[in-house]
Amino acid sequence: MPDSVPFICFYVGKVYNKYIICLYTEVSKLSKTLEDLKQYLEKMNRYQHVTTLLYWDMRTCAPRQGYEQLGDAIAYFSTEQFQMSVSEELRGLLEKLSEPQEYEALDDKWKFVVKKMKRCFDRDARIPKEVFEKHVRIQTEAETAWEEAKAASDYSIFAPHLEKLIDVTKEIVGYTNPEQELYDALLDPFEEGMNSEIIDRVFEELKKELIPLVDKILASEQPDDSKFQGYFDVDAQVKVQKLLLDYIGFSWDKGAVGTTTHPFTLNFSSKDVRVTNHYHEDAPLSAIFSAIHEGGHAIFEQNVNPDYDGTVAGSCDYMCIHESQSRFYENILGRNKNFWLPIYDKLGELLPQFKEISLEEFYREINHVRNSFIRTEADEVTYAFHVILRYEIEKMIFREGVSVEELPTLWNKKMEEYLHITPGNDAEGILQDMHWAGGSFGYFPSYLLGSIYDGMLLDTVEEELGDVDALLAQGRISEITKWLNEKIHRFGSTRTPMETLKAVCGREVTAEPLVRYFKKKYTEIYSL
Amino acid sequence: MPDSVPFICFYVGKVYNKYIICLYTEVSKLSKTLEDLKQYLEKMNRYQHVTTLLYWDMRTCAPRQGYEQLGDAIAYFSTEQFQMSVSEELRGLLEKLSEPQEYEALDDKWKFVVKKMKRCFDRDARIPKEVFEKHVRIQTEAETAWEEAKAASDYSIFAPHLEKLIDVTKEIVGYTNPEQELYDALLDPFEEGMNSEIIDRVFEELKKELIPLVDKILASEQPDDSKFQGYFDVDAQVKVQKLLLDYIGFSWDKGAVGTTTHPFTLNFSSKDVRVTNHYHEDAPLSAIFSAIHEGGHAIFEQNVNPDYDGTVAGSCDYMCIHESQSRFYENILGRNKNFWLPIYDKLGELLPQFKEISLEEFYREINHVRNSFIRTEADEVTYAFHVILRYEIEKMIFREGVSVEELPTLWNKKMEEYLHITPGNDAEGILQDMHWAGGSFGYFPSYLLGSIYDGMLLDTVEEELGDVDALLAQGRISEITKWLNEKIHRFGSTRTPMETLKAVCGREVTAEPLVRYFKKKYTEIYSL
Repeated sequence: MPDSVPFICFYVGKVYNKYIICLYTEVSKLSKTLEDLKQYLEKMNRYQHVTTLLYWDMRTCAPRQGYEQLGDAIAYFSTEQFQMSVSEELRGLLEKLSEPQEYEALDDKWKFVVKKMKRCFDRDARIPKEVFEKHVRIQTEAETAWEEAKAASDYSIFAPHLEKLIDVTKEIVGYTNPEQELYDALLDPFEEGMNSEIIDRVFEELKKELIPLVDKILASEQPDDSKFQGYFDVDAQVKVQKLLLDYIGFSWDKGAVGTTTHPFTLNFSSKDVRVTNHYHEDAPLSAIFSAIHEGGHAIFEQNVNPDYDGTVAGSCDYMCIHESQSRFYENILGRNKNFWLPIYDKLGELLPQFKEISLEEFYREINHVRNSFIRTEADEVTYAFHVILRYEIEKMIFREGVSVEELPTLWNKKMEEYLHITPGNDAEGILQDMHWAGGSFGYFPSYLLGSIYDGMLLDTVEEELGDVDALLAQGRISEITKWLNEKIHRFGSTRTPMETLKAVCGREVTAEPLVRYFKKKYTEIYSL
Repeated sequence: MPDSVPFICFYVGKVYNKYIICLYTEVSKLSKTLEDLKQYLEKMNRYQHVTTLLYWDMRTCAPRQGYEQLGDAIAYFSTEQFQMSVSEELRGLLEKLSEPQEYEALDDKWKFVVKKMKRCFDRDARIPKEVFEKHVRIQTEAETAWEEAKAASDYSIFAPHLEKLIDVTKEIVGYTNPEQELYDALLDPFEEGMNSEIIDRVFEELKKELIPLVDKILASEQPDDSKFQGYFDVDAQVKVQKLLLDYIGFSWDKGAVGTTTHPFTLNFSSKDVRVTNHYHEDAPLSAIFSAIHEGGHAIFEQNVNPDYDGTVAGSCDYMCIHESQSRFYENILGRNKNFWLPIYDKLGELLPQFKEISLEEFYREINHVRNSFIRTEADEVTYAFHVILRYEIEKMIFREGVSVEELPTLWNKKMEEYLHITPGNDAEGILQDMHWAGGSFGYFPSYLLGSIYDGMLLDTVEEELGDVDALLAQGRISEITKWLNEKIHRFGSTRTPMETLKAVCGREVTAEPLVRYFKKKYTEIYSL
């Protein structure tokens, strides 16, 4: 059928009707104020939907020359969305619903939503408009400078912007979290309820155990990785991604995939969750483990209680918990030999080079421990050092006032201490990640906390479902996914990380299970 | 890098800044009213951008369960966009800019924009709100009923909806074009300046010549198409599409591709134009010619004067001219043997089956004339009958008041008369196209008018550039594309179809060149 723009209008009609029907269904049972909040959220969600879609489009599809117009649209609709999130109308609704009489009449979901929104509103509304705008401007400039600096491998281009960004971040936290210690306040959006005291404790535990473990591993005989070099067809890699997503339980009815440079997952609701991947002809393991990792994020979001969609109860906000799921699939399951048993032949059918690689050789390579420069390419053990290093530097920035000029030296010193290697340049050192350029201080610990939680989760899964090796070997991975759905995913954002761990594992955060898992696994693999 | 939703916020900042810079640049030179109109258009364009993107997403990517929320967003933003297009604010701006003093100070582009927008505004603003909404509702229901009817191959499910849609269409035209004959008014949005008197004349010319030509062709020896059956790898077909788009001059810097069920092209501006395709494992020619057809639409849009972007001067509105370009690439060029000479070996490298098919065999198959039921699958000659049949039926509906009950009989009668075949069921008969269900009466003639213009254009190209066979054989297709860019594409919507033909070909519309082209080509192919 049709061919050019005018056909857009066909669909206007179609969905317009659905929309009208939609509005009529649920309203009558609710309090008038709650009705108003629901309608307000519906409108906000539409803006959220389009900003998310514009972002998706920019990262997966839009051509370069289209960026300017696309960017203009993102700017406009994000600003509209932000304004709705701090409007007087919303303040009025939240205040009214927080009054005891209204509040007590709400069900649990709406109690949670009102409480959380009110807290965020009060926090954000304290930021003066000019400070918010200054932050946006500095962040924009910092990102552009970071891109340039990384391309030129020259930290000095980025440093003055990073300094401004650190300053404005401090200023903002002064408004949003005036009574909280600065760095703990920065951790809060990503790991609510977590603080640096706990993180210090578990990260120290890890350092103490992993430094000697890695030393032993590296002193052992290393696997031969020559069979993983060569040309691996990209179309076949796309098919492998499909195989893996099917296998771990990704729902195509509620999900889609795209191609991008740096893999990410995003979601519009539990019913539309999208993963992306990149494919390198000379490095097939990259797309394979990105597929499993992003698939883990996606399975989480696809299984949040759909009744929470469109509210702050849905879509899990806590990055450490989110990373615990993606990393559980990627590492605890995906780097287990038994994960591959039921599908290894299929992998060989799609990428014939794998027919020449035994499962044992494959298993050794996907758990090949190396001291390397780039966090996202690290194995699951040395990965811990990449995160600890960033965490320690962030604390020094925000607590000890270490200057931006000192950071590269600090970075290299810590790389030597933990990984015994020195980056050859800034691009493979301090400039490798975009988090700081984007103003995300306090995000990095989430990755490693995720793995620490995974150790704890693995213990609990085995107590409740039995031996994971056996489950995987018997092709019963769906039972593990179902367990995670029930224990974690369906709650969305309604439980903080600490509440989740307590409810699921019944204990406080500890790195001990992760350390035990690493020791057992790598002692076997490397015959230590 | 990052993984879940929060990263959206990175990009807000980035583009927000660009946006601010954007607004500051061009304003100072313009009249205050024109400034206001420009800003109004910028805002409208953002809504246009997101409705277009939401549509793109629905057709190329979104998972089934995401449709409802996506649909709700389309409904909301389309309605906002429509309301902006009929607002009192816009009326005021257009009226003020139409006053002689303001109008005469405008440059040619803005004169065109103000005039055209004023005309559309006056036309649309005459539709009472309740009639507009009724139309939307009926159209929605008709589309749903058509889908159901087509799946069940049962016209009776669709008939009552079609009747209502015809009635409300008549009602609307009573408001929008009160002084114009009904069916001519329906043709107007697609073929401005064209009327049924001219169409009657050229379609009759075609019928007179093509009926005996096709009879002669079908009485001749037909090519053997057995080598085109079998399994053709879909990934390889995607690569063939890329080869073809590169070859004809599609710009990847200003374009993207997607996969869908029914191929279409859409554009956000001249800088972001997207084509889609479908891939059938058992029918490789389908994706090949869809790629060239949609590529033709896209090359048009990519080469409109970028200064017209974001106004009614950009993006060509006239379907007959748009189809003339897509069909010029698909048929006049793409079904010419010489088009394939420079790339036929590459085709064989991507789809090895074509190594077993000589270029001569390929050429015969892509010009294989058959009487078939489905318009979109027809060869370039019998295609004419598919359009003429629909055009004649539309005239009978709107001029002679033929009832919806009579249409299937009428359809089948005309199929027998022109194509000597009778559809076995409604799905391969009157229900095959969605145009009527979408309320697009008067659209069909555009396709055939496009081919008629192509005959005229071919004459002019050969006068000005020389023999097209030779140009193609020498791999000089880019010279033809450049000529079309200069003569047609860059003007966007600023010239009506009649003005375009007069300026480019210097003559009135005539089917004679197309008939001459068909006779010469098929006399040779079929040794008539």
